[in-house]
Amino acid sequence: MAENLTTIVSSATQTVEINRDCPTVIIGERINPTGRKAVLAALKEGNFDMVRKDAVDQVAAGAAILDVNAGVPGADEPALLEQVMRTVMEVTDVPLCIDTADPAALAAALSIYEGKALVNSVNGEERSLDTVLPLVKEHGAAVIGLCMDDDGIPETPEKRLAVAAKIIERAGKVGIPPEDVIVDPLALTMGADSNAGRIALETIELVVKEFGVNVTMGASNISFGMPDRKYINSAFIAMAIYAGMTCPITNPLVTEIITAVLAADLAMGRDDYGMRWIEAYRKRQKAA
Amino acid sequence: MAENLTTIVSSATQTVEINRDCPTVIIGERINPTGRKAVLAALKEGNFDMVRKDAVDQVAAGAAILDVNAGVPGADEPALLEQVMRTVMEVTDVPLCIDTADPAALAAALSIYEGKALVNSVNGEERSLDTVLPLVKEHGAAVIGLCMDDDGIPETPEKRLAVAAKIIERAGKVGIPPEDVIVDPLALTMGADSNAGRIALETIELVVKEFGVNVTMGASNISFGMPDRKYINSAFIAMAIYAGMTCPITNPLVTEIITAVLAADLAMGRDDYGMRWIEAYRKRQKAA
Repeated sequence: MAENLTTIVSSATQTVEINRDCPTVIIGERINPTGRKAVLAALKEGNFDMVRKDAVDQVAAGAAILDVNAGVPGADEPALLEQVMRTVMEVTDVPLCIDTADPAALAAALSIYEGKALVNSVNGEERSLDTVLPLVKEHGAAVIGLCMDDDGIPETPEKRLAVAAKIIERAGKVGIPPEDVIVDPLALTMGADSNAGRIALETIELVVKEFGVNVTMGASNISFGMPDRKYINSAFIAMAIYAGMTCPITNPLVTEIITAVLAADLAMGRDDYGMRWIEAYRKRQKAA
Repeated sequence: MAENLTTIVSSATQTVEINRDCPTVIIGERINPTGRKAVLAALKEGNFDMVRKDAVDQVAAGAAILDVNAGVPGADEPALLEQVMRTVMEVTDVPLCIDTADPAALAAALSIYEGKALVNSVNGEERSLDTVLPLVKEHGAAVIGLCMDDDGIPETPEKRLAVAAKIIERAGKVGIPPEDVIVDPLALTMGADSNAGRIALETIELVVKEFGVNVTMGASNISFGMPDRKYINSAFIAMAIYAGMTCPITNPLVTEIITAVLAADLAMGRDDYGMRWIEAYRKRQKAA
């Protein structure tokens, strides 16, 4: 059983600590045009109103970090990502999770960011390791490591653990400590593979036991194609927190999701006398 | 790691198998006057309409077993419990979980029951072990063993495991096999002790690892005194299923609860292609 590690990420003015003894850290997922036509159209037109609103609303709903993605097909991603980040930093103070597959956009984003960013993401592919890790090291950031490599996404928890091990090792070689690697076990769609949820949960347990690192996950894919997805996602997120996930990438604006996270923290003994639960309830009541 | 055991309970016409590889078995909790003034008043007047409705509704909502409790202060419990059971057996075919603290009522109930009942409950107190276990053996029933004894409810998972061990051992001595003992780790109120949830979950893991027995739990106490209890209960039930609970005593009429159970089964890989999930969704749509 590895010791639990603490990841620190920060903005110019705020520091967020991610640790298995602290309440779960929510990384707000909504500033992302993927699958959101209205956001995509707005970004194409240079309209950042929705970005502003998504930033403010997610922080109010409990996000401690905001994922920022500007993956608009055909756009100048480095420039657009920078604009999106500046917009978000104008309206909120929380640390950012820089979400891009474009190395130039990542480099540009890291160079304008004040604080210790979280980079989303590196994976076990040689090209990804060689490109992303040096940038993460250069800017003193933390990084999300996806459990996939040149052979694709492994089918067993043991093989995903091996990819996590490879990423942590390679990060170490360029001087990134294990506490600055947050592992994503990858939750695939259960409608396509009935064992997708179980494999992700078991990977979390293995990774935590072996390395004590923090664990993130996009917990929404799992229910793709199913009806009443919010109930699947909320149960799954509570189970993943029990398994050891510490910083899900999710949508805190969905009542079923934010309550599942808070209730899981309560059940894990991370919310003394339910004070956070009660406070969040009062906020929901006011907002309703 | 102990082998997973299978508990069989049955009515005159139906058999229910409880096992860690099968979907979760819901024991419907509602036929119980405790804390339900209208049911209490109706039972006092000899009115069984609500019992009938609770029986039919819970089975329709997914309960595979029904808990029956007739603990009305001042009433002739053996006679009343018999009436409640006969009423339930008239309108449904599912096996029953006979829920009484009165040994005379338990003996009477077991003597009229056709099939293999589940008895709720025995605990580690000498008086309880001496009274309940021989009745369970005599009628070939299965029994729920609560993790408490003459010293009260232990504060640590390890000590609760020790009580479970004692109950399983004493059951063995009168000829009840381990697979016919279903352990209840006891979930206390988190509002009073912030660690109540964690202790229950850890007890489940220890009991499963050590004995492979099935595990039940009343998963509602945990949120007593808190606002928005359904969200706490649903997250907690999903986490408990992941920890190894196989047959919660709960209310399947609450959407958040039944969906949490079904979603947890889906996430555990116990629902091929989400067929049960989709079927339950269609039923909810029809009922709405």
